[in-house]
Amino acid sequence: MCPAQVNANSTRGYVIPIGGGEDRVKERHIHRRFVELSGGRAANIAVIPTASELETTGLDYSRIFSDLGAAQVDLLPIARRADCDNPRYLEMLDRATGIFLTGGNQLRLSTILGGTGIAQRIRRHNAAGVHVAGTSAGASIMSEHMIAGGDSNSAPLEGAASLAPGLGLTNAVIIDQHFTQRNRLGRLLSASSYNPFLIGLGIDEDTAAFIGPEGVFEVVGSGTVTVVDASDQTHSSMWEAGPGQPLTLLDLKVHVMGEGCRYDLVNRRAYLPDEQTAFCALPYDKVRSY
Amino acid sequence: MCPAQVNANSTRGYVIPIGGGEDRVKERHIHRRFVELSGGRAANIAVIPTASELETTGLDYSRIFSDLGAAQVDLLPIARRADCDNPRYLEMLDRATGIFLTGGNQLRLSTILGGTGIAQRIRRHNAAGVHVAGTSAGASIMSEHMIAGGDSNSAPLEGAASLAPGLGLTNAVIIDQHFTQRNRLGRLLSASSYNPFLIGLGIDEDTAAFIGPEGVFEVVGSGTVTVVDASDQTHSSMWEAGPGQPLTLLDLKVHVMGEGCRYDLVNRRAYLPDEQTAFCALPYDKVRSY
Repeated sequence: MCPAQVNANSTRGYVIPIGGGEDRVKERHIHRRFVELSGGRAANIAVIPTASELETTGLDYSRIFSDLGAAQVDLLPIARRADCDNPRYLEMLDRATGIFLTGGNQLRLSTILGGTGIAQRIRRHNAAGVHVAGTSAGASIMSEHMIAGGDSNSAPLEGAASLAPGLGLTNAVIIDQHFTQRNRLGRLLSASSYNPFLIGLGIDEDTAAFIGPEGVFEVVGSGTVTVVDASDQTHSSMWEAGPGQPLTLLDLKVHVMGEGCRYDLVNRRAYLPDEQTAFCALPYDKVRSY
Repeated sequence: MCPAQVNANSTRGYVIPIGGGEDRVKERHIHRRFVELSGGRAANIAVIPTASELETTGLDYSRIFSDLGAAQVDLLPIARRADCDNPRYLEMLDRATGIFLTGGNQLRLSTILGGTGIAQRIRRHNAAGVHVAGTSAGASIMSEHMIAGGDSNSAPLEGAASLAPGLGLTNAVIIDQHFTQRNRLGRLLSASSYNPFLIGLGIDEDTAAFIGPEGVFEVVGSGTVTVVDASDQTHSSMWEAGPGQPLTLLDLKVHVMGEGCRYDLVNRRAYLPDEQTAFCALPYDKVRSY
């Protein structure tokens, strides 16, 4: 599924994958910035805790967003596909200025939300300017192609990353989370070299990529975001490797970026915090053509 | 990657996945219909043999299309990513009325063509009315999400289908080929239940699905096309199953359709050969919103 069309008079909302394990008790820097972006004291946040099986997960996040000053926080405890037709939940989504997807299991999210009115509304509202943040599994599901599982390894192996269809809020990237903490470089390299149009984003814990409507993202948080760009890849042994064999991948570009760094997904260029971003000439939606 | 936009005055070309092993010497029924659709005696066919490592593959298909009366047949022997910048190949694509992707290995196709000007042009030309057919690996790569590999089994198992990003000529379906011959129902059930927005198409050898611009396809050939529709799925154990474990998937709809049957991908409805198709009220591009 690909991002919904932006209407002539709208600007796409931010897409904000968070690498999991973010600070939820002290500064709550990432959540604070998400609430500010969503309207601050006028923010209306919808929390979707579907990825998690723990009843407390959604309540925890609801409290955080209330503590941070949001005007309204709605919890949508969707636990099965039939819940996706609940008109009350659809109304809650319709009035949200920000939508938050908790962590848990990304296949639980895709099997319950996939192809429902809830999934469709999240895409459409994002195209109409609503910001969507997700942590851990909630980060993975955001892109068209999602990493559903795989091995921990620093070297790429055949079959190291298993993919599944995600929500499709962006199709420029494929997202991995708990990145440095769980040693996932190998599986991100495998995932992004399947088809070099995808830019791999490996997001550390307590770290987020705030992807703006022009396709430039900024790193926020205490860790780093690793970018894998396979567009100049000259060779991949992916198609001829046996099960579990190490892959040969030549000419991959990798960036490891700390807080304040920005990356232009349209022009595939990294910027340091104090560097002027040459704003992409193309609107973000043009990314889809490559 | 999602299908390119159709301009106001254009109609999308057909997308024609073929299940492999099609008759290439006698009636060549499927190839004949593809040539007729592409203009018959005025047809200009571009053959992309990249999936195959055999030099003869592209030549064989070129001869078939010439024999069937195409005015011009161009062979684009793209064997590495650098070949995708060859201006001669881009020109050949620009004048094609039909594009044919041979069989071989779909990961060879995605790793070599993915993110290049060739992939972009195939998508854009298809949106502008050029028909694109592909057999075996060439069929798998056509959709946004492609089955890259997996097990032969009639029951769905965790991990039975490995996915990778495809060319994105359609994002309504996920395609499997050599379907009955290689006992692939299990992996198609697994693949389409990852995210129920996808309709699974299992295409037998010597059989094709001619997917028209309105999102209705017709079965052509001596075998069947199996459709898996998971949109009413009430339960999937995908997210909680251990590696290789059998899956529980409840309320999947399956159709097995022989020659002349049609299926409406927008309204998810199957039609017998002599049944009137209630043409979908929505244009095909609307499929993308669900």
